[in-house]
Amino acid sequence: MPDHNTPEVSKSDDSEPYFSRGPDTLKIPLVMHRDHRRRLAEAMLKDKLAPEGTVIFLRGGELQSVYDSDTEWDFKQESYFQYLFGVKEPGCVATVELDSSAPYKHKSTLYVPRFDDVYATWMGPIKPKSWFQSKYVVDEVLYVGEIDLSNAKATMEIEGVNRDSGIAHAEVNKQAIELTNKLDGSALWDVLNELRSVKDEEEIKIMEYACLVSSSAHLSTMRACYEDRANTHRMEYNAVANFRYEGAMRGCERVGYGCIGCAGTSNASLHYGHPAEPNDKSVHRSDLRLLDMGAEYHCYTADVTCTFPTSGEFTELQKEAYESVLAAVHAVEKILKPGLDYRDMHRKATRVIAEELTKRLNLFTAPIDSVCEEALVARYLMPHGLGHMLGLDVHDVAGYEPGHFKDKDDVSLTGLRLGRVVKEGYVLTVEPGCYFNPYLIDKWCSHPVHSKMVNETVLRSLIPVGGIRIEDDVLITRDGCRVLNDIPRSVEDIEAFMQGKIEWVPGKGKSEVA
Amino acid sequence: MPDHNTPEVSKSDDSEPYFSRGPDTLKIPLVMHRDHRRRLAEAMLKDKLAPEGTVIFLRGGELQSVYDSDTEWDFKQESYFQYLFGVKEPGCVATVELDSSAPYKHKSTLYVPRFDDVYATWMGPIKPKSWFQSKYVVDEVLYVGEIDLSNAKATMEIEGVNRDSGIAHAEVNKQAIELTNKLDGSALWDVLNELRSVKDEEEIKIMEYACLVSSSAHLSTMRACYEDRANTHRMEYNAVANFRYEGAMRGCERVGYGCIGCAGTSNASLHYGHPAEPNDKSVHRSDLRLLDMGAEYHCYTADVTCTFPTSGEFTELQKEAYESVLAAVHAVEKILKPGLDYRDMHRKATRVIAEELTKRLNLFTAPIDSVCEEALVARYLMPHGLGHMLGLDVHDVAGYEPGHFKDKDDVSLTGLRLGRVVKEGYVLTVEPGCYFNPYLIDKWCSHPVHSKMVNETVLRSLIPVGGIRIEDDVLITRDGCRVLNDIPRSVEDIEAFMQGKIEWVPGKGKSEVA
Repeated sequence: MPDHNTPEVSKSDDSEPYFSRGPDTLKIPLVMHRDHRRRLAEAMLKDKLAPEGTVIFLRGGELQSVYDSDTEWDFKQESYFQYLFGVKEPGCVATVELDSSAPYKHKSTLYVPRFDDVYATWMGPIKPKSWFQSKYVVDEVLYVGEIDLSNAKATMEIEGVNRDSGIAHAEVNKQAIELTNKLDGSALWDVLNELRSVKDEEEIKIMEYACLVSSSAHLSTMRACYEDRANTHRMEYNAVANFRYEGAMRGCERVGYGCIGCAGTSNASLHYGHPAEPNDKSVHRSDLRLLDMGAEYHCYTADVTCTFPTSGEFTELQKEAYESVLAAVHAVEKILKPGLDYRDMHRKATRVIAEELTKRLNLFTAPIDSVCEEALVARYLMPHGLGHMLGLDVHDVAGYEPGHFKDKDDVSLTGLRLGRVVKEGYVLTVEPGCYFNPYLIDKWCSHPVHSKMVNETVLRSLIPVGGIRIEDDVLITRDGCRVLNDIPRSVEDIEAFMQGKIEWVPGKGKSEVA
Repeated sequence: MPDHNTPEVSKSDDSEPYFSRGPDTLKIPLVMHRDHRRRLAEAMLKDKLAPEGTVIFLRGGELQSVYDSDTEWDFKQESYFQYLFGVKEPGCVATVELDSSAPYKHKSTLYVPRFDDVYATWMGPIKPKSWFQSKYVVDEVLYVGEIDLSNAKATMEIEGVNRDSGIAHAEVNKQAIELTNKLDGSALWDVLNELRSVKDEEEIKIMEYACLVSSSAHLSTMRACYEDRANTHRMEYNAVANFRYEGAMRGCERVGYGCIGCAGTSNASLHYGHPAEPNDKSVHRSDLRLLDMGAEYHCYTADVTCTFPTSGEFTELQKEAYESVLAAVHAVEKILKPGLDYRDMHRKATRVIAEELTKRLNLFTAPIDSVCEEALVARYLMPHGLGHMLGLDVHDVAGYEPGHFKDKDDVSLTGLRLGRVVKEGYVLTVEPGCYFNPYLIDKWCSHPVHSKMVNETVLRSLIPVGGIRIEDDVLITRDGCRVLNDIPRSVEDIEAFMQGKIEWVPGKGKSEVA
């Protein structure tokens, strides 16, 4: 085969292979993934979770057909595979053999699909094994059909059940490979989850990039909504189109979760924007928008929510409700640091919301202590958790310590996906919210005890506000925390930015209009 | 439950429920789908393919989890289900009971998922059965758990293998439902495919809308590429971002297939833009772009390809190659009408390309008859078919008559997905192309016979052109055909439009700059 058929591996100035989406985007050195494998091998060997020579088998993502058609659903690499190999091509599997004498404590083998001539015509030049080896910095590359683990001393693969979905990892990609001398893989699952939870230097750069791109895209969308405020033909999904365009232009075609692009009373549905409610209501000038959208880069995702008035000006009621939620953001971010239990942060946030709504609007008629004891905010106003781990998955792994699960009996922690003491290097969301959902309000007002603790007239007057969520992506630092997104959050800044009275550059904050 | 929790069904002025994505988009009366069911029932009864009372069971699409996470892949309704019911909600199934005494020759039952309180908090107001019945114009609505077909006289479901993917329909959505007295469903598959192939009045309007939105989006993208012609930081995917934004702003968030957004030599890979080649090359001012992208509306998709020079000006070589392909488009569209065999159109297109490339560039040294006899264009320059059926799937069903399959022995028809006599109401693509793929050129030049029939110097000089495809979506009319997209196609019009010397409004064509 002549040379022009062999693609080149992109290398940076120091000759390291990298992932990027072009000159204006972030370059990620792919040795990062070898480092992840090294850490995995070290952890497994150190704690004797698997004997020397064990071969860990990992299943990469495969393209899934759209029903019986010849098109495919969107593709994202499987997250554990991405963490350990960073391979963008579908249809691969890999092994990590534990070897304490090797420089990186393991030997890695990547198995790639073998393609025929049809591929060279339809899909592009066939990448030889050497291309994969050089690009992904692995010890060996073989074809998927060449796997033979029959001589392995022991084998292992990830065994565990995702705490957010309830789906067993084993249900992913059932490639027909028989593993002999197979050891239990639940410790592997725990170790990988814990490794993924603490982001290293390169991963932090990726999360920063995803958050800055998301911030720019949100800013552009806020302005676009303001410019369209008098357009009666505008639909909720137009804001989503704007956000996705801005992300895609900077190499983030994928979003880490379905865009929630609601307006007005739709804001009260926490996971709006799914196929049965596809952001398809028309937007009114008086609507508060709640936009929960996050750009993804190299499979790491941001998760950012902005709430703002279409008109560029909060009504008095919208402002009081918004500032009640913002107070909870500030209360948490002021104190969040390693060693604090996130369950306490969640309880703190719901208390602040109760206090603020009462101070500002006389919402609760009972003492705040009783309101918290009955978990009225968690039950009726913020029926989701304060936040969750963030990384390769939007609801990332390791929200609870190994062996621990959500406490379903404590109603004050309803829906909390992150219930553990936080550590330096965690990236998590801080996203208090307050929703005026007619269904929950009816339930509340017909409750024999809880109905007596709230001013129903005030409560029902809030229904048109819909709902508010303010969601930051936060890195836990050595002695505190750092918000990775950069977006106007105060009522004054939001109004000034939307109306063009100030500028805002993610990473640099606000400035005067030139 | 109070009324404000019950969503309303959108109805048009004449009180018919419809699908639309807002004021600026197309309204589709949902009775269209009842009409599709009526036609199905009539065909089954008339040809005695199933006895009176047979219950046809149909499986709607379900959300698919992204591996073990709690996010889901993008959603599109399953195509046969969409054709017969037009239901946008995932997780439904349905039955059509044949009944010649009923007004529409059948009784339809839609089975919808039953949701609990969590849905009302997280996803949105729970739609009652009456909402589904009114919206989708079915005879009865029950919950999925309420299915009981044990008393059915006979049952049937679609049985067949998609000709393009090779996937059996039975592999779609294996919901645990036992069908008793089950009849063979292969005739049902054939009948549905034939029904889907002839578009009715409402379907033609949808295809027109998808094609006009796609045309606008392509036009905007051409201009954006021209404006960016000197920007060395532009990547292939920026054009894709532009197209998708324009589509999404008009209610077409989905595209019917992965966007092919190549530039320069990438153009030679027919299905570029997949996850392993994600439109991630940088674009040079001298590159010819080949953009194959189609917007989807109500699950019906357009499929349009534009080829144009980034610089706004074709080089001499690019122009000669482009006009050779354009001549094939014109030759086919001038004569295409009911009664013609599409295989003859395919052969005509490849002959015209051979003739033009020889007239203009002296490419072939052998007589054109020998070139066609040896199928050199089909083998080495245009290794795909001239076109395919288009509709709910991009490679839509019924490309061959019931019981017929692709002729794999005739190399002149390589890859042709549409091999039958065309009828009024078909919507299909006319998409001749010409690609200078180094892999195929090497193969050609080392062939003992074929290498002597071509001027190798000319052939190799064309490699930097990459490839050209010009793809129209065409409706077969009573006595001819009508192109549904509206985009500048001649070299002169493309250059004038890109450079801002003329305007172009899809549906109205070109006009002077105001």
